[in-house]
Amino acid sequence: MANFGFSRLRVVNPYDVAFREARSAVGAAPLLQTAEECTSVAEAVADCELVVGTTSVGHRELQHPLRRLEYGSRVILRQLQKAPVALLFGSEKFGLSNEEMSHCHWLMRIATVGQDLSMNLGQAVALCLYELARDPKAAVAEPEKIHRASAGEAEQITTMLLEALERSGYVNPVTAASTEEKVRRLVRRMDLAGRDAPVLMGMLRQILWKLGKE
Amino acid sequence: MANFGFSRLRVVNPYDVAFREARSAVGAAPLLQTAEECTSVAEAVADCELVVGTTSVGHRELQHPLRRLEYGSRVILRQLQKAPVALLFGSEKFGLSNEEMSHCHWLMRIATVGQDLSMNLGQAVALCLYELARDPKAAVAEPEKIHRASAGEAEQITTMLLEALERSGYVNPVTAASTEEKVRRLVRRMDLAGRDAPVLMGMLRQILWKLGKE
Repeated sequence: MANFGFSRLRVVNPYDVAFREARSAVGAAPLLQTAEECTSVAEAVADCELVVGTTSVGHRELQHPLRRLEYGSRVILRQLQKAPVALLFGSEKFGLSNEEMSHCHWLMRIATVGQDLSMNLGQAVALCLYELARDPKAAVAEPEKIHRASAGEAEQITTMLLEALERSGYVNPVTAASTEEKVRRLVRRMDLAGRDAPVLMGMLRQILWKLGKE
Repeated sequence: MANFGFSRLRVVNPYDVAFREARSAVGAAPLLQTAEECTSVAEAVADCELVVGTTSVGHRELQHPLRRLEYGSRVILRQLQKAPVALLFGSEKFGLSNEEMSHCHWLMRIATVGQDLSMNLGQAVALCLYELARDPKAAVAEPEKIHRASAGEAEQITTMLLEALERSGYVNPVTAASTEEKVRRLVRRMDLAGRDAPVLMGMLRQILWKLGKE
């Protein structure tokens, strides 16, 4: 919840010992400390205009409209601009009971591969809140552009590498011209990052020094 | 992993006792039983053409291009059509070391609210695999259409409700016409599900029976 900026946690009849311990633990999240304890689902969702239950579906016959997380979260986000929304999770072991579900306007499910595989509660919560916080725009554009090495730097590296290959006896004088082109293309394909160009030049400089003059 | 259809788990130098126990536990996932043990990251990623590390960033100075999960997963999906991709996670406590990161082509991060808040490893894995399995098309169209009550059913309910209100003395004869319109609009706004129409009519029929003839 804290990872994705959600702050209001309401727990219905929590297992007392565990909840009190978690709450009073050193370094307990502020979120846990301000969590509200309720005695019923009705009380927990009273001030919300939309109540969405979560389910792994399984084989139960559902009495509610069921939406996939990808779509349901869009509906929730629209509603959140107007009024509070409750996202209701059942217990780790049994999920939501039919009575608990009857407080919901509709249900949301995470599309998974095996329908009878259960999902860890903490993971299900993380996935739902991630989808709500997810930025669809971030999927299409790369936000952090990586600064590439310039053509000049690539050519300097090409020249130094060729020199090292010549001094090592790698280059056959007959095919020297085609070797040069081969090396040039190889360096371009590396698509070097800007920060890597001086590092590579330093390495080549040292190798050239060690190889000595022809 | 099983929830989202991923099957190849490779663990590098796992904590032996815990790993052996988890593996031999009754009902252990097949995935865990077929997990491969490796002695180095290099060995674990050897047959992959793309290696992507995961990080919570924090305050470390990164030597790698960093991509958001939403975008990075598109790049991974494209690459997966051609060759295997490794998604590398660090230990729960320390994340990936610089040595481990040096095996990666680039890093991926989950956009969270607080940068110094760490994320549970299991949740981070679930989020990455969810994003890879996520269907962008499911966000725009509602896959399961909910069958609504027909206009005829809505009108039947309107008539019955009006009758019950009349028998109860709710309707002022002077404003009866406007009350009828009010009730009709109210029933339409309920946007009743198809399955709920007969239930509601059954309830009204019973109430009408109890109220008796005027």
